[in-house]
Amino acid sequence: MGFPHGSCFKTLAATMAKRTIATLLTDFGTADPYVAAMKGVILSMCSRARVIDISHEIPPQDVLAGGLVLAEAAPYFPSETLHVVVVDPGVGTDRRIIAGQFGGQIFLFPDNGIITFIAERLPLEAMAVVRNTQYLPPRDPSRTFHGRDIIAPVAGHLLNGLDIAKLGPAPDAYKLLDLPQPTPREDRVVGQVIYVDRFGNLVSNIPEQMVRERYADMGNMHVVCAGRDVGPLQGTYAFVDPGEALALFNSMGYVEVAVNRGRACDLLQAGVGAEVEIRETTG
Amino acid sequence: MGFPHGSCFKTLAATMAKRTIATLLTDFGTADPYVAAMKGVILSMCSRARVIDISHEIPPQDVLAGGLVLAEAAPYFPSETLHVVVVDPGVGTDRRIIAGQFGGQIFLFPDNGIITFIAERLPLEAMAVVRNTQYLPPRDPSRTFHGRDIIAPVAGHLLNGLDIAKLGPAPDAYKLLDLPQPTPREDRVVGQVIYVDRFGNLVSNIPEQMVRERYADMGNMHVVCAGRDVGPLQGTYAFVDPGEALALFNSMGYVEVAVNRGRACDLLQAGVGAEVEIRETTG
Amino acid sequence: MGFPHGSCFKTLAATMAKRTIATLLTDFGTADPYVAAMKGVILSMCSRARVIDISHEIPPQDVLAGGLVLAEAAPYFPSETLHVVVVDPGVGTDRRIIAGQFGGQIFLFPDNGIITFIAERLPLEAMAVVRNTQYLPPRDPSRTFHGRDIIAPVAGHLLNGLDIAKLGPAPDAYKLLDLPQPTPREDRVVGQVIYVDRFGNLVSNIPEQMVRERYADMGNMHVVCAGRDVGPLQGTYAFVDPGEALALFNSMGYVEVAVNRGRACDLLQAGVGAEVEIRETTG
Repeated sequence: MGFPHGSCFKTLAATMAKRTIATLLTDFGTADPYVAAMKGVILSMCSRARVIDISHEIPPQDVLAGGLVLAEAAPYFPSETLHVVVVDPGVGTDRRIIAGQFGGQIFLFPDNGIITFIAERLPLEAMAVVRNTQYLPPRDPSRTFHGRDIIAPVAGHLLNGLDIAKLGPAPDAYKLLDLPQPTPREDRVVGQVIYVDRFGNLVSNIPEQMVRERYADMGNMHVVCAGRDVGPLQGTYAFVDPGEALALFNSMGYVEVAVNRGRACDLLQAGVGAEVEIRETTG
Repeated sequence: MGFPHGSCFKTLAATMAKRTIATLLTDFGTADPYVAAMKGVILSMCSRARVIDISHEIPPQDVLAGGLVLAEAAPYFPSETLHVVVVDPGVGTDRRIIAGQFGGQIFLFPDNGIITFIAERLPLEAMAVVRNTQYLPPRDPSRTFHGRDIIAPVAGHLLNGLDIAKLGPAPDAYKLLDLPQPTPREDRVVGQVIYVDRFGNLVSNIPEQMVRERYADMGNMHVVCAGRDVGPLQGTYAFVDPGEALALFNSMGYVEVAVNRGRACDLLQAGVGAEVEIRETTG
Repeated sequence: MGFPHGSCFKTLAATMAKRTIATLLTDFGTADPYVAAMKGVILSMCSRARVIDISHEIPPQDVLAGGLVLAEAAPYFPSETLHVVVVDPGVGTDRRIIAGQFGGQIFLFPDNGIITFIAERLPLEAMAVVRNTQYLPPRDPSRTFHGRDIIAPVAGHLLNGLDIAKLGPAPDAYKLLDLPQPTPREDRVVGQVIYVDRFGNLVSNIPEQMVRERYADMGNMHVVCAGRDVGPLQGTYAFVDPGEALALFNSMGYVEVAVNRGRACDLLQAGVGAEVEIRETTG
């Protein structure tokens, strides 16, 4: 990777004392005591901390969904924010926990690829494997809840101004997900659904920018999802009748298939993995 | 409308700098990154802000439910609170965004009628259509997520002390919902269910005050819901046996049909729109 | 009970002015306005308060689940935290509301046994029945929402430094749940599932400590749940293949039956009350 961590760490040391905002992204749900236990540990170490929930409803162990949600929320937070991520199917094994600075923000996360979308969008400035026992709790951590017993205490230290280089050595590499990529063909772009949101909207992996660069005339194409033609790209949901399917560029910057006042995932019987194509309109 | 906005705005200017509490009411759910992105934008503009969730589980695009939830929560917050509302089926169309001061609190909301219950309960003191481009983001906003790209930045300006009159002109009128009204008849009051809560309680549109004014003797009436007689009005849930249906005046000030330790919506097979009647008991 | 409340109250008086963190645990869900109304009341009385959610997804009126969630989260919060608990099937009846100090933290709760797990784990230092009308709202509270009209205002007073002894007399006794206890037999320990978490993990009432004290050799036993042998105790979930059941000591300190990347409650068709046995492996 070879990032200039020396110079970065100088910047960090100067500004870290001001850190008070931490976000939390997990697959814990909100019924159980797990999220609150983590917040309690963080507040016990740094009483001025303000912990903001990104989401706790990531499908259990779904690293891809967690990574996308993280990347669609974290960049909007103030510089200096600490983002704490616990979607961690490998908890208790020897998978590593990593602290990384991307675009001025700090991310603390299990090394399972969940940082992929952030790494695509924000510049990496510093990174450390969490290993220094000085900053880990003295007693044996639970092997099933590193979020509470390892990650939250480390978050507390970072909020209190600890330089991430103190946590351990920079890694040689870190894990990135092998994401499905949209495929441009002669007369179409072939992608797939990578996320379904609360409204049943089908978010594809086809970036708005790819479509805009390829097609000068937007009226000259239509979108097909799960075998159904949903017409040309629209400006917003309300541009078609209620109950009707449409495609648009969504707020994440991807092509999305939706239903005005309805649920595309139900109407089209489609979910993650369903095919989405941008086709040129002929004749 | 003709509200005295000149004098109100003086009061506002004097006190606004102290504003730090913002609430957020949406139909976004909490699984997706949408709520957190809005909080990130608000905190990036006003780092001292404390953003409190009212609810994000309003049924998608349900303006009536959103308006009722808003009115049952917002008035309990401190004066000077900013309430940010994004239940917005018309996002991306030319529907307006409005900032209004009611009862000393500021509400920022799409002009779709969601302010109806607040407008019934709190005095309107000032109002502006959000239009002044000086306070809108310079780049094109997403057409599907005005919450993040327009409403959150405006909320940030308001938290930082902006006078709402600076946002744009006062509107000539604003949208109110045409709510179903309870009908007093000779021997009964006929209303309907307008909200079902988490416990399955059926909240009607019949105000406690209407019943108290009409009936001196509370023992002289009974309540019928969805064709089922649930008896006279009780003091609280535990006054009937577990599993039994009852009616009472609820904490919102309406007649409610409930089941002690059970779900009235299931037992009575009833939901929003079901008939609720207060009948005089004869014989 | 005979706790030394005189001396405790001295300690309290000296430290209470610093209290700013309140947690909230309810069975209200997050769709309705109930949680936000309570937060509004608390913030209206104590604007510096920071209210942290423990959970609002306790199954309606489930005092046992609420008590366990409380005990697995509250102790991780800073000393001086105020924990506000509203799982309250008896709302509006003459059940008491109690303020108790356990282990340096204050708990405000309906006297229905929900404090049982806390009382098992933290030392009781002071207790009062909430009765002094000076600290209750002047107007009639709603009989169905004491959380908003009684408990939240009292929480506001406590955050503002009120000594709990001022709220009313110390009770002679308070309610504890009659919890199912694990039974050691000649060749096994017989327990049962007391909680199912978001991941479908089956949490038993068999404490890790009981197992460790009884069995020197952990390889010499296996766990049977709902009639299914799930093998010896493992270190963590990922130590068995995905989809396979296992048992382990969980982060709460109990024996738990789980499925790696799956849901034990579904695979074993088991829930609260299902039998869990630790059996010696013979042969």
